[in-house]
Amino acid sequence: MATDDYRPDTRRLAALSDGVFAIAITILVLSIDLPSGSDAGPVTVEMVAREWRDAVSYVLSFLVVGNFWTEHRHVFDHATHHTRDVEWLNILFLMAIAFLPFPTSLLGDYGGLVPVVFYAAVMTTTGLLLYALWWVVARNEAFFEEELAPERVRYDRLRFLLYPSVFGVSIPVALFVSLDLVYVCWGSLFVLTPLLQRRLLADGGETLPGGR
Amino acid sequence: MATDDYRPDTRRLAALSDGVFAIAITILVLSIDLPSGSDAGPVTVEMVAREWRDAVSYVLSFLVVGNFWTEHRHVFDHATHHTRDVEWLNILFLMAIAFLPFPTSLLGDYGGLVPVVFYAAVMTTTGLLLYALWWVVARNEAFFEEELAPERVRYDRLRFLLYPSVFGVSIPVALFVSLDLVYVCWGSLFVLTPLLQRRLLADGGETLPGGR
Amino acid sequence: MATDDYRPDTRRLAALSDGVFAIAITILVLSIDLPSGSDAGPVTVEMVAREWRDAVSYVLSFLVVGNFWTEHRHVFDHATHHTRDVEWLNILFLMAIAFLPFPTSLLGDYGGLVPVVFYAAVMTTTGLLLYALWWVVARNEAFFEEELAPERVRYDRLRFLLYPSVFGVSIPVALFVSLDLVYVCWGSLFVLTPLLQRRLLADGGETLPGGR
Amino acid sequence: MATDDYRPDTRRLAALSDGVFAIAITILVLSIDLPSGSDAGPVTVEMVAREWRDAVSYVLSFLVVGNFWTEHRHVFDHATHHTRDVEWLNILFLMAIAFLPFPTSLLGDYGGLVPVVFYAAVMTTTGLLLYALWWVVARNEAFFEEELAPERVRYDRLRFLLYPSVFGVSIPVALFVSLDLVYVCWGSLFVLTPLLQRRLLADGGETLPGGR
Repeated sequence: MATDDYRPDTRRLAALSDGVFAIAITILVLSIDLPSGSDAGPVTVEMVAREWRDAVSYVLSFLVVGNFWTEHRHVFDHATHHTRDVEWLNILFLMAIAFLPFPTSLLGDYGGLVPVVFYAAVMTTTGLLLYALWWVVARNEAFFEEELAPERVRYDRLRFLLYPSVFGVSIPVALFVSLDLVYVCWGSLFVLTPLLQRRLLADGGETLPGGR
Repeated sequence: MATDDYRPDTRRLAALSDGVFAIAITILVLSIDLPSGSDAGPVTVEMVAREWRDAVSYVLSFLVVGNFWTEHRHVFDHATHHTRDVEWLNILFLMAIAFLPFPTSLLGDYGGLVPVVFYAAVMTTTGLLLYALWWVVARNEAFFEEELAPERVRYDRLRFLLYPSVFGVSIPVALFVSLDLVYVCWGSLFVLTPLLQRRLLADGGETLPGGR
Repeated sequence: MATDDYRPDTRRLAALSDGVFAIAITILVLSIDLPSGSDAGPVTVEMVAREWRDAVSYVLSFLVVGNFWTEHRHVFDHATHHTRDVEWLNILFLMAIAFLPFPTSLLGDYGGLVPVVFYAAVMTTTGLLLYALWWVVARNEAFFEEELAPERVRYDRLRFLLYPSVFGVSIPVALFVSLDLVYVCWGSLFVLTPLLQRRLLADGGETLPGGR
Repeated sequence: MATDDYRPDTRRLAALSDGVFAIAITILVLSIDLPSGSDAGPVTVEMVAREWRDAVSYVLSFLVVGNFWTEHRHVFDHATHHTRDVEWLNILFLMAIAFLPFPTSLLGDYGGLVPVVFYAAVMTTTGLLLYALWWVVARNEAFFEEELAPERVRYDRLRFLLYPSVFGVSIPVALFVSLDLVYVCWGSLFVLTPLLQRRLLADGGETLPGGR
């Protein structure tokens, strides 16, 4: 569109995003409760261990957000400018990231069907917003200083769909199959991510112009 | 004024501002309460749904702050230097931004006339501070490397007045007309903002020097 | 010292400091309590107004920290490198800044002699640390690309001593004279700061090399 | 590995890390409780003094994290690019940093054997992760624009092992010797760190290429 010349550079957008990422992952720790019954004697190992569910959801959310961060950086690695659409899509994505401490607390404090499904639904939405962000940026050639190769785009699509797909699939698994299997689904991400990346490397998907 | 040569560049000012924005929008999530009555059995859908008011005020505040952020960035996009006045006006503006989690909590937890009016008053003040910041920067030619066109300034004025006007108008609406209409007022912002921007584009208001 | 070549540039030091400043001023808002007695009917104007003491200490701390931020930036404006001493002094200073939400909460929630003296003592310490930081940086010519004029150093000394002096003097005032007078002392800062700066401008203290 | 050309620059990695560091050290203050029994009269000196344990663990954690920050910056000072391994190791390290407010709260609120050992164990782990990060970056010549001297690497190894060693040794000390001695161990860090750095300087360990 010839009249839309609004293309600020991406530095402050990256700064705001890094800030929200950093804060969201750091306040996750506030969701871990201090042992209760503390006035009634010294803290025991059992009292700390009882917080294991909080610890698991802390680690899980931290790693998932860590992954979203690397992917978000990937989106803006080559893009030097952006449009208003990208800006607002990014704000929606950050709204989802900033919201994550809530489902993490819910999952860590209570567990059970509703918190698991709610957590998976929020993660699926967040992943889809990031996918949309990538798609809007990637298809817009004007953002880039050099062209993206078609294979590169194909690989990236797979990569950005991995997280929302796995979290999306885990919702019916939770509802109709088993809650334990959900954790297997989510854990599989930490096996699938490096596998997919190794595959990309082997195929040369990451040796394209721009070095990434 | 010839003797006032204090014109530090705007990078650390932008860094502090982005930090405050990022933290203010991220700690908004702390205003969403965990479901109560949690020890008495599993979490139900109703218990999560009961937090809808918190969720609405979270989304509303996030989008409004997101808008303030894009506008704030707009103010400093072309300005490469600033003065002490700008610095202190910016600190006052950040004080208002950092304060927003409080009225958001109040609105989300209680609703009712006082929280609604209080929220609208805080947002009006925040918007007026941003307008003042824009005005002080825009009229000061020394901040810019290239001159701003008069039409550009006229459009910007409209844009920076939109938020404080709508929130300001919503105060008498809340007091004398109806609380439900207030939400319509506020929601109208998310229709008016893109409309105004489209209009600006059509008129060429954004194709002025500087590309924004 | 010829063997100490450790002079990293100041960018990440500034980034960490801006982060701590931004977070410290933003979590000040968490010290403002939501109105209590909320389940017993709608929120009234009186319930919000009862939080005035919290609001006053929020505004006071925000403006004082805002001033510390502008002064901190001033310290590192011309310094392009730093040493380990500067690094650790800066970490001590940031420790004081990060601590401020605690005395602010104490002052806002309780008031009275002990919180007032404690608040003044913390602010005095913070101001003295900043003064020490300025002094270590300013006397070390190697940090600067251009020499600092002696008058400039003299003016800066006054400026950096203003805050710790006023807060230091307010301690005996609180103990031996009157608590109300303390607030007058503190409020005087917001009159003295612009006066001092105007004086500096008139004397040309800010037109020295470097433009600040 | 010839096919792995993924070497983004380290700026956003540094920005995210500085953000997490800044937030983690700033929310440490939230672990200091307000005096209780506040409604029953004015705040007394004893009520503030009773929080000394919180204050000690605040200062200790702040200084340890401050040290981790200077070391983390040291790791990336010369490295201009990084790989996926470095990225994920850094995310694990940040997870440990972001977690520190929890053991700090536990130590400050309760004290006793379990919190002391838990605190030491978390600090040991964090230190080892930073050591691993340093090791992965330092052995990879491709990250650097100029080669690192072998003596430099030897000195750095000592330096990065200091913190995990002292915290690691304090665990059996706590379990089998005495809890008081643990605090002596930890306090020794603030004597050993400057001594070690002086030694390095005397040996010229810091005058190697790169000026650090």
